[in-house]
Amino acid sequence: MRILVVNCGSSSLKFKLYDLTAAETPALLAEGLVEEIGREKSRFTYKSHKSPNKLVLEVVAKDHTQAVSAMKDALLHPEHGLFKDKIEVDAVGHRVVHGGEKFSNSALVTPGVRAAIEECIAIAPLHNPPNLAGITACETIFPGLPQVAVFDTAFHQTMPPHVFLYGLPYEQYEKFHIRKYGFHGTSHEYVARRCAELMKKDFDKLRIITCHMGNGSSITAVKNGKSFDTSMGLTPLEGVVMGTRTGDMDPAVVLYIMDRQKLSPQEMNTLLNSKSGVKGISGISNDMRQIMEKAEAGNNRAQLALDIFVYRIVKHIGAYVAAMGGADAIVFTGGIGENATTIRAKILEPLAFLGAEIDQVRNASDAKEKIVTRDGSRIAVWVVPTNEELSIAQKTKTIIESQVSAG
Amino acid sequence: MRILVVNCGSSSLKFKLYDLTAAETPALLAEGLVEEIGREKSRFTYKSHKSPNKLVLEVVAKDHTQAVSAMKDALLHPEHGLFKDKIEVDAVGHRVVHGGEKFSNSALVTPGVRAAIEECIAIAPLHNPPNLAGITACETIFPGLPQVAVFDTAFHQTMPPHVFLYGLPYEQYEKFHIRKYGFHGTSHEYVARRCAELMKKDFDKLRIITCHMGNGSSITAVKNGKSFDTSMGLTPLEGVVMGTRTGDMDPAVVLYIMDRQKLSPQEMNTLLNSKSGVKGISGISNDMRQIMEKAEAGNNRAQLALDIFVYRIVKHIGAYVAAMGGADAIVFTGGIGENATTIRAKILEPLAFLGAEIDQVRNASDAKEKIVTRDGSRIAVWVVPTNEELSIAQKTKTIIESQVSAG
Repeated sequence: MRILVVNCGSSSLKFKLYDLTAAETPALLAEGLVEEIGREKSRFTYKSHKSPNKLVLEVVAKDHTQAVSAMKDALLHPEHGLFKDKIEVDAVGHRVVHGGEKFSNSALVTPGVRAAIEECIAIAPLHNPPNLAGITACETIFPGLPQVAVFDTAFHQTMPPHVFLYGLPYEQYEKFHIRKYGFHGTSHEYVARRCAELMKKDFDKLRIITCHMGNGSSITAVKNGKSFDTSMGLTPLEGVVMGTRTGDMDPAVVLYIMDRQKLSPQEMNTLLNSKSGVKGISGISNDMRQIMEKAEAGNNRAQLALDIFVYRIVKHIGAYVAAMGGADAIVFTGGIGENATTIRAKILEPLAFLGAEIDQVRNASDAKEKIVTRDGSRIAVWVVPTNEELSIAQKTKTIIESQVSAG
Repeated sequence: MRILVVNCGSSSLKFKLYDLTAAETPALLAEGLVEEIGREKSRFTYKSHKSPNKLVLEVVAKDHTQAVSAMKDALLHPEHGLFKDKIEVDAVGHRVVHGGEKFSNSALVTPGVRAAIEECIAIAPLHNPPNLAGITACETIFPGLPQVAVFDTAFHQTMPPHVFLYGLPYEQYEKFHIRKYGFHGTSHEYVARRCAELMKKDFDKLRIITCHMGNGSSITAVKNGKSFDTSMGLTPLEGVVMGTRTGDMDPAVVLYIMDRQKLSPQEMNTLLNSKSGVKGISGISNDMRQIMEKAEAGNNRAQLALDIFVYRIVKHIGAYVAAMGGADAIVFTGGIGENATTIRAKILEPLAFLGAEIDQVRNASDAKEKIVTRDGSRIAVWVVPTNEELSIAQKTKTIIESQVSAG
């Protein structure tokens, strides 16, 4: 079974084409990225398994439909393409950020599913519209091909009410659906399952804390195979400090800054989501590699941003160990989690009391997938590279197969 | 040395008069409360050590100066008073909520100190003005008597920058002093010190987590005798869920509710601070005794409020254990912390993994001051009744003595 995975942002389209015929050895056939959608010319990067070379092209992609069209052209290209006359894939799997309370699993896109995704635009105004644009574009360019929506929020729908509710009047939940939803669910589930496999233990009997650390970061408590708590909330602003987002903060600060500095809601939103976090604290960048270099070179504000980033993650891990009444494993993933050896070491330093004893040699090893604690450490700590696209492909396959068997 | 302690709210004045001549055995000579200041008639409750009876009077207290005058009249009353012609006290100690970054200790009120307290009105618009009104009133009624300001924020001024800074652009701190300040400092310090005494250990070598749980609640990590982190922030809204306050929440929720429900900043402020928390979730009350009764009787929303209240505290304790790289003790104080046996038990249940092993018999004992964990528990858990007024009196005495010795 061949699955095309599509992830649309407001001005980008990322895709990967998988062959999942052999379940144990999924094959990545092609991948690409269209950037700067909406401009006169867009940049298109493409690579297929047929060639070691990456193609970089200029294409016309004024909207997501034209971007999907460019993707189709590449897949049918006489030299670089994979198909001759027709795109032979079984389904398209779309990343959809917000599924609200309607989706605790992936879903075949039907008019009803589409309407439910549209309803969530209110809570995810930046993310759901481009996700929907990607679905529409694929329907236009590949008529009749099944489309599956895979939600970032779905894995977290198992959180119990005392965990997902805010301390607001209850009608804010009943009437307006304001609650913690959580994001990065596909990644958290993927690495938690993989961790259980690596530990050769039953996923449903483990308490795992997954730390997805990239430009956006979130931490999840996975208890007995289910998301029990997660650091992001109604929106991806809540939780740990991120590349450009504040993370947790006294909610009164929002009103205080708007009042004293005369900011509009839109300006405040931009301040909190795009000008804050590691970038805002350091005044340098949201790129953690650069921050680490600058800190190493003695820049105080870079060091401060790094210390705050680490400290907030430490607190979340401690909170989730307590929340689950203990933990069997911690998993690091995402660009920072997978690559930043020193950040992992800094996070683990104060966690020895809880039972996570780092092995510095293991932590510094070249392996992509590895355990970084000593044998006998009460909490095992793992690094597991995430693969959201592969996971979306697998979930899409599952939905298609269930449709076939049901139909 | 006799110290009068005054705690002014917007429409109330609470006072206690202590004799601290014998440092080990402070004596409470009199106490009282003027309520509904600003109305036609105010209610005045007064009790002195001379009589077992409490007096309840109607007085005229249109402002805090008239309330202080009523207090003076009571202390000079022929039958119930303590003094004949003149109030013979050595100083007045005032609770002042917000000292900003200027005060890491209590301070004799001078024109400069007053100006600094006034500057903090911007960050504490509800609290600092009545605190200042109390100081002015005492200066008017007791001219020449030394006045000392004891700040709720002072104990927390030892927090390091990576702990007190939010993930905001750095200039928000530099220009506008937006950061975590923390409150209840007098209480956290008092019970943490007392815990060290009870453990017969050096306060400066212990890691103690103090849980002040009343209508307002906050949790503090006290590391080596100093506040290292605390749950309240720029304002007392941040942290655990409280009687009527939300506590931690996705900051984006503030903008989201204001936008969708067309609330003014003032309405939003009221929603977050006065209509939320245990009261808002349960729809019943902010009184924890009532919530516990209703939950016991099967009310789901009361149970939910209770579960959320407990869960958020558990997470904060876990976070602080991790933040300090371990903990030696946890202290419960405040109305709920001291009295709610079942809430303490619920909080401690998931903390066994961290090393806090409850002893149910000790937890349920009548003693006011007690250890509630088993012998050998890695983390000792104590109940220590707080006494903010006595602590304010002692701090005032220290300031007065240092002034005298300084000449």
